Amino acid sequence: MEEQKTDSRLEKELDNIYKTQKEVTVIGQIASLVDWDQKVSMPPEGIGDCSEKLALLGGLAHEKFTSKELKESIGYLSLPENFEKLSDKDKIVVKRLSKDVEKTTKLPLEFVEESSRATAQAHNAWEKAKKESNFSIFMPHLEEVVRLNQEQAKLIALPGHPYNSLLDGYEEGMTVDNLDKTFSFLGTELTRLLKTIQSTNVYKNQNEDLLKKRFSLKGQEKINKLVKELMLLSDDRTRMDVSTHPFTTTIGNKDVRITVRYIGNPLDSLGSVIHEGGHALYDLLLPEEFENTVVRNAPSLGMHESQSRFWENMIGKSESFWKHLYPVYKQTFKNQLKDTNLEDWLRLVNIVKPSFIRIEADELTYCMHVILRYEIEKCIIEGSIPVKDVPKVWGDKMQKMLGITPRNDAEGCLQDTHWSGGSIGYFPTYALGSIYAAQLYNQLLKEIPTIPQQIEQGLFHETVCWLEEKVHRHGRTLTAEETIKKACGEGLNPEAYIKYMEEKYSKIYKF
Amino acid sequence: MEEQKTDSRLEKELDNIYKTQKEVTVIGQIASLVDWDQKVSMPPEGIGDCSEKLALLGGLAHEKFTSKELKESIGYLSLPENFEKLSDKDKIVVKRLSKDVEKTTKLPLEFVEESSRATAQAHNAWEKAKKESNFSIFMPHLEEVVRLNQEQAKLIALPGHPYNSLLDGYEEGMTVDNLDKTFSFLGTELTRLLKTIQSTNVYKNQNEDLLKKRFSLKGQEKINKLVKELMLLSDDRTRMDVSTHPFTTTIGNKDVRITVRYIGNPLDSLGSVIHEGGHALYDLLLPEEFENTVVRNAPSLGMHESQSRFWENMIGKSESFWKHLYPVYKQTFKNQLKDTNLEDWLRLVNIVKPSFIRIEADELTYCMHVILRYEIEKCIIEGSIPVKDVPKVWGDKMQKMLGITPRNDAEGCLQDTHWSGGSIGYFPTYALGSIYAAQLYNQLLKEIPTIPQQIEQGLFHETVCWLEEKVHRHGRTLTAEETIKKACGEGLNPEAYIKYMEEKYSKIYKF
Repeated sequence: MEEQKTDSRLEKELDNIYKTQKEVTVIGQIASLVDWDQKVSMPPEGIGDCSEKLALLGGLAHEKFTSKELKESIGYLSLPENFEKLSDKDKIVVKRLSKDVEKTTKLPLEFVEESSRATAQAHNAWEKAKKESNFSIFMPHLEEVVRLNQEQAKLIALPGHPYNSLLDGYEEGMTVDNLDKTFSFLGTELTRLLKTIQSTNVYKNQNEDLLKKRFSLKGQEKINKLVKELMLLSDDRTRMDVSTHPFTTTIGNKDVRITVRYIGNPLDSLGSVIHEGGHALYDLLLPEEFENTVVRNAPSLGMHESQSRFWENMIGKSESFWKHLYPVYKQTFKNQLKDTNLEDWLRLVNIVKPSFIRIEADELTYCMHVILRYEIEKCIIEGSIPVKDVPKVWGDKMQKMLGITPRNDAEGCLQDTHWSGGSIGYFPTYALGSIYAAQLYNQLLKEIPTIPQQIEQGLFHETVCWLEEKVHRHGRTLTAEETIKKACGEGLNPEAYIKYMEEKYSKIYKF
Repeated sequence: MEEQKTDSRLEKELDNIYKTQKEVTVIGQIASLVDWDQKVSMPPEGIGDCSEKLALLGGLAHEKFTSKELKESIGYLSLPENFEKLSDKDKIVVKRLSKDVEKTTKLPLEFVEESSRATAQAHNAWEKAKKESNFSIFMPHLEEVVRLNQEQAKLIALPGHPYNSLLDGYEEGMTVDNLDKTFSFLGTELTRLLKTIQSTNVYKNQNEDLLKKRFSLKGQEKINKLVKELMLLSDDRTRMDVSTHPFTTTIGNKDVRITVRYIGNPLDSLGSVIHEGGHALYDLLLPEEFENTVVRNAPSLGMHESQSRFWENMIGKSESFWKHLYPVYKQTFKNQLKDTNLEDWLRLVNIVKPSFIRIEADELTYCMHVILRYEIEKCIIEGSIPVKDVPKVWGDKMQKMLGITPRNDAEGCLQDTHWSGGSIGYFPTYALGSIYAAQLYNQLLKEIPTIPQQIEQGLFHETVCWLEEKVHRHGRTLTAEETIKKACGEGLNPEAYIKYMEEKYSKIYKF
């Protein structure tokens, strides 16, 4: 009798946590739609009402996620005598949910609202500052953002460096200690590789002028659609639109959308399709059995980024990919490519050239931008660099790492929107994603050596399935570290990344 | 002191009703976006999650709109001693809100949810039935919809005919007594006019073959964009997309979107732009001071429809409109129109020809479709016609009114989606809108006789301003009857409509 009573209570509390997660998931998807609409379709004057919509949805989700009822259900289900009765599925859901709720609860609603207001203002100031290339317009807002992040770090209060508490929001379990080690190795090795490349004859004679020709929008769109199809992103579950900054968003379990930008360079728009396509595949192939729970998610942003990087770099810049696509490319852009061959084109796709803007950086120097940003973020959070010195430090570091100095703030510390959105601790995930991607690629080639031949024939199916099997289908049942270990037999390993780089560029730059 | 206490309570309750109305408005706008997205952009497999979104938003809005707190605030503010202290603005808001909440409360959440489930099924069955042109597939669902509407009528419980309680949901204050009188006059007069027209030589020699030529999509789009601009629908606050059934939706106070369909006939797509454009102008020009309250709305669907009809028929089919547009048309569709002139074209635009499908009907016979549907709806709600007899009754009535008999259910009683969506009592508003539109047009010409010359020059500004002044800006501060009385000096008057028709068609059909 007693037993039965407990079981029915167990049922009730389980129902409650699943019901609430579903509500919060649906609210989140609605917010994604509002955000997508703002960036893709909204008439400009709709912006005011759009903010109202997002504020209302944000408040609702926070309310439901921090409700007394939910906490009581989690509390009950987490008691050892109840927890042991749960199925494996319920156990992992309770475990992840419990941590998420605990973390959300650490940030009082007032603090969240204060941050929202501050970042709304910071975003406007940043846009103006960037346009006028004037850091001083953004400076007081960045100071406020830093202050709020410092406060947030105190509220989250993880052990060690205060930056750990911020990092954990994007890359669960990652720490400054770990990053310092990883990035110090990565930075040294990338610098060495860059110097080697820069000393080659190929580098000295390289020339990008071809990409400055006019590649028609229509031609680019045709190619991009084709590549989206190759990646098995069917129109039944996805769509592709145009926006200022490319992004991927999940509007429903079977409705994931990507956007692309067209700025002239056809490799830019193609790169965004493949990159965002990698993100989209992840969200589409997350485990169905965990639909509408916190587990139907990637374990970290770094792991999510590993998929976009994998497709963008390991596949989209590979010889086999271009063996397949180049004929279509050449046919579509006859005039532009009339004096070029596959080998030249591949060198252009993989050109290494230090530049100011992270999102336009080549595969090799990309991570150096990330390391630079990480070092600065860590210091402004711990207070060892005042915000006002950021442009100066930025310039010095860039000179040291890449041998170039930004001519102004717009192409220096104002280039990215993350800080203006209140995000500090996000950047490292870009580099972690690149490392994971290289590890996965090495492993894939080891397990299925015919992948390059498949890609060359335009057959992407086995690659997608392998990634689903090794990464996507785990959702958050595993952590990022567990996922990569299970897939590749070892945890995060920057050496594998450097090895991949070395092999790749030694061929292209002939060293 | 006592006075002060009352005043601060008054403030508090006012704050609460405005806060809640804003939340409900924003939730409604979010639901409109979800619905728009479903019809315009959503990948097909998103449909399941889309229903979840709408269900969640519907539940939230119902919850907030029927909350104890809101009712208490309204109750307090409605007490005579408090009400008299309110500003005129607050008074009308409290009055309308009070009635809306009372009405919503009459329908228990379980009933609303039961109806939702029933209509979701009915809609699927209707789609299948229409596709197979087989009423028996839809019949049991229609019976259920009728039963639910009968129950709803009992719950709303307005005096007189049970249909009154349904009607009131679309056309506040309208009754069966009033409609019977209006529609009986209208039906007789329209039948007479139709017979007169059918006896003319122009009618006997008319021919629509020209519209069966191929009019390019690109050409139609160009014209439609131009007309949207003429109507002062700026891209800053509106957009125009393609959907299966044209519609207008309000996503924000400054974000109103229309859709258009392309089925070949260029007058069909143009008609939908102008029709939906009329709806869009209404929503854009509603009184700003009532933003985020129940008063920033049209007083009835009939009044809303008056605006779409006004633009579609009175303007969009007028000689002056085509004097302006025909040259562009002729230039865009050179080959198609090479043997036609403005006079012939205008006759084609205004052709009268009994047909089966309401939404494709000409201006004259359109209201006869509505009357037919009204008569059947009234009888199935009072129970004097069983649902199974609907196809037979439909055929008989259509033969009697229009002299034609549908060959099957698809072009008969299955043609429209309203019943499958649970709506009974909606149709009459289409005819009421046509009557209001004619009254407003007569009045406009009386007050500003130069309007036709302005339209001919492509100047729509004064017409838009007049409609804003006479209709839109009142929102729901006035009822539909009050609005038309204030604008035209008299209430709903079908005679004015017949007079407008008589004048128009006697010119075209030379009688």
